[in-house]
Amino acid sequence: MRVLLVGAGGVGTAVTRIAARRSFLGHMVVADYDLSRAEAAVAALGGSGGRFSAARIDASDRAAVTALLERERCDVLLNATDPRFVPPLFEAALAAGAHYLDMAMSLSRPHPERPYEECGVKLGDAQFERAAEWEKAGRLALVGLGVEPGLSDVFARYAAEELFDSIEEIGVRDGANLTVDGYDFAPSFSIWTTIEECLNPPVVWEADRGWFTTPPFSEPEVFDFPEGIGPVECVNVEHEEVLLIPRWVDARRVTFKYGLGEEFIRTLKELHRVGLDRTEPVTLPDGTRVSPRDVVAACLPDPATLGDRMRGKTCAGTWVKGLKDGAPREVYLYHVVDNEWSMREYGSQAVVWQTAVNPVVALELLATGVWSGSGVLGPEALDPRPFLDLLTEYGSPWGLREQ
Amino acid sequence: MRVLLVGAGGVGTAVTRIAARRSFLGHMVVADYDLSRAEAAVAALGGSGGRFSAARIDASDRAAVTALLERERCDVLLNATDPRFVPPLFEAALAAGAHYLDMAMSLSRPHPERPYEECGVKLGDAQFERAAEWEKAGRLALVGLGVEPGLSDVFARYAAEELFDSIEEIGVRDGANLTVDGYDFAPSFSIWTTIEECLNPPVVWEADRGWFTTPPFSEPEVFDFPEGIGPVECVNVEHEEVLLIPRWVDARRVTFKYGLGEEFIRTLKELHRVGLDRTEPVTLPDGTRVSPRDVVAACLPDPATLGDRMRGKTCAGTWVKGLKDGAPREVYLYHVVDNEWSMREYGSQAVVWQTAVNPVVALELLATGVWSGSGVLGPEALDPRPFLDLLTEYGSPWGLREQ
Repeated sequence: MRVLLVGAGGVGTAVTRIAARRSFLGHMVVADYDLSRAEAAVAALGGSGGRFSAARIDASDRAAVTALLERERCDVLLNATDPRFVPPLFEAALAAGAHYLDMAMSLSRPHPERPYEECGVKLGDAQFERAAEWEKAGRLALVGLGVEPGLSDVFARYAAEELFDSIEEIGVRDGANLTVDGYDFAPSFSIWTTIEECLNPPVVWEADRGWFTTPPFSEPEVFDFPEGIGPVECVNVEHEEVLLIPRWVDARRVTFKYGLGEEFIRTLKELHRVGLDRTEPVTLPDGTRVSPRDVVAACLPDPATLGDRMRGKTCAGTWVKGLKDGAPREVYLYHVVDNEWSMREYGSQAVVWQTAVNPVVALELLATGVWSGSGVLGPEALDPRPFLDLLTEYGSPWGLREQ
Repeated sequence: MRVLLVGAGGVGTAVTRIAARRSFLGHMVVADYDLSRAEAAVAALGGSGGRFSAARIDASDRAAVTALLERERCDVLLNATDPRFVPPLFEAALAAGAHYLDMAMSLSRPHPERPYEECGVKLGDAQFERAAEWEKAGRLALVGLGVEPGLSDVFARYAAEELFDSIEEIGVRDGANLTVDGYDFAPSFSIWTTIEECLNPPVVWEADRGWFTTPPFSEPEVFDFPEGIGPVECVNVEHEEVLLIPRWVDARRVTFKYGLGEEFIRTLKELHRVGLDRTEPVTLPDGTRVSPRDVVAACLPDPATLGDRMRGKTCAGTWVKGLKDGAPREVYLYHVVDNEWSMREYGSQAVVWQTAVNPVVALELLATGVWSGSGVLGPEALDPRPFLDLLTEYGSPWGLREQ
C-alpha cells in the first residue's frame, strides 16, 4: 500500500513512527506546507525510514494534491492536518481515485437564528453529501478515524454487537491528568481545534429528537477515569462521534463530554469574551490582517514539542448504558496512554500518539483486505473486533470496566 | 500659544473639542500617524475649527516631530499617544526648544530577578534622568498630566497644602459604573494601556522603604465611590501617581488602586496565562509577525467610538488620611464625569473626556503664565488651587467628601 500522509505536525510525525514498524506499508509520502517539517519527520525514522519520502504540499490546493497522489501512485490519502483542510483533501483524493482517511470531519456552521438549540450545518455534512459519488467511484472515505472520533466509535459498535441487547445511552468521555512542567498554560492538543470543538454549540442526539444543540459547556458531570486518572469534570462539546454513531448504531441517546476541567473552561470563556477565538481576520494599526485564533495558537508552545515536559496519562473511551439478557448493564470501554511510555517507545507525546495509532491500524486493515467498502463511512460502519485485536497487537491494549 | 497635539485618538479628539472653546489657544496642529483621523478631528470642530490644522506624523520619528514643531513654531507639544511614544516625543520637544506635556510617563521594566518585590526601571525614570537638560534649556516637561495621573496629583498637593498638617496615606482610587450596550466585553479605555498598567508589578511607596513592588492585583479593597457609583473592588496597579506624589508631597505611604471589578481581573489574568498580553511579536504559520497585545486591541471595539452605547459615570480621585489640628481626618477628593453629559456637551465618552480636560486646563495655566517652571515636573510640583478653580470654570467641578 502506498500512502500520502498530508501534515507532518505532531500527529503526522507519530503516524510515521508507528507505520515504520509495520510491514503492510509499501511507501509513505510525508507532505507538509513546511517541507522541513516533512523532512524532519522522515529523517527522525533513521534506518527504518527507507519506505518514506518527504514532499512539500499546500493542503488547500486541491489540484496540487491530486497531482501528487497521481504522481506517487498512492492508494490512499491520510489527512493529518487541521479540519480546515478536510474539503480540499477529501476532494483531491476522490479526483485522484484514491481512498481517503481523516481524523476529524468537515466543519460545522451554527444555526443562524437558534445556534444553541438547533443544528445548522453539521460536522461531516459536506462529506456525507458526497457519499454517492464515492460509492460510484468504488472508493472509500473513512472519516473520523483517530482516537476520538475513531476508536471511540469502534467501541460503540463493539458494545452494540457483543455487550448489549439494547442501548439507552452512549457517551464518549475523554479525560486526562496530564501536566506540563514549566508552563502555566500549555494545552496538550492543537488549541485551534480545541477552541473549535469547545466553543461551537455542542451537539446531542436523541432517538425521538434527532440532532440538536445546547449552549457551550452544558450538562457538567464528574466522570471517574480509570488507571489512576480519577474524577474529572466533563462537559458537552461538539464532536464527531455524536454525528457518526447514530448512523450505524442503535441507541436512544448519544453524547460527547470532554474533561476540560474548570481552569481550562475559564480560559476558553475569556478568550471568547474578548473575541480571540474568532477565525475571521482583524486589522492591526499597520494594516496587517490576522486571524485572532492563529495568534492564540502562536502564543502557546507547540503541543507536539511538549512530550519531554509532560507527565501523566490520557484516556479516551466510550461509556455505554443499556440492557443485556434483560438486566441493566453499564460499561466503560477505554484506551489509556501513559506519556512516559509513548515518549520512551516512540518519542511522541501521549495525546498525539493516541490519535495517530488508530489511523495506522485502519490502514493496515485496509491493506490486508480485512476492512473494505466504498462510500463515506464512519469507523462504526466496519467490523470492530479485528480493529480492537490489532490495536492490542500494536502494544497498546484497551480496557473494559463494568460500572 | 501654539500647540502641537500628537495623537488624534479618543483623548486627542476630546482635547480639540475642549480647547476649541478656550481663547488662550492661538493655534493647534493636530497630528496623527493616520492623517484621516487628524483631519476628522479638525473637521468635527466645524465653525470653531479655525485655529486648528491637521498633519501626518510618525510619533516614533523624533527628527520628523522636531521638524514639525519648528516649522509650525509650536510653544508646546501635547502628547496624546500611547506610552510607547513618550521617549521620542519627549526628546523631540527638547530638541525643538518646546515645552512638553504628557498624560502617561515613560514605561517601566520589571526587576529582572525579583519583579514582585523590587522596582526595576520605574515609570518616568527615563524622563527624570533628563531633568537637568530641561532645566538648562529653560523648558518645562510637565509629565503625567491627564486625570490619573494628573488631577489626582493636583488633589494630593491640594490636600497637603490646605487640608492636612501631616499625612499618613495618599491612595488614588479610580472606579466607575460604566456599561456598554451590546457588548459582552468592551473596555472604556485603551486596552493596550490597561494591560500595561494592570499586569506590570504594582508599585507602592512607603517613607521608610521607598518604592517597592507587589504581585499584580494585590491588596484588594472595596472602595465606595460617590455620586451613585457605589462600592467597587479595587486592587493595586502600577500607576504614575505613586512615582510622582512622593517627590513633592510628604506622606508616609502612597498607593494607587484601580476599581477593575472581579470580571475584568479574571479576563486580564487569562490573557496573561495564554501570553496574549505580550508585546514582543510572535510568528504565525505564514511568517507574519505580530504583537499579541495589538491583536487583543484589534479584537475589541475602539473605546473612543463607544460613547453612544455607554451608560454611567466614571470617578477619579485621591483619598487622603492624616491629621489636621491634632485630630484624625480622612477625605476623598474626586472628579466624576457622567457619560450622558460628556456625550451631550462634547460628543466624547466620559473616560476620554475626563482624561482630556486636564491637559487643556494645564495648557491654559501655562499660556496665561499662572503656571511656569523648567525641568521635568509632575502636576503636584505646581500650585493646585488655580488648576482646581479653572477646572470648575470649564464646567466640570470636583468634589470633597469627608470620610
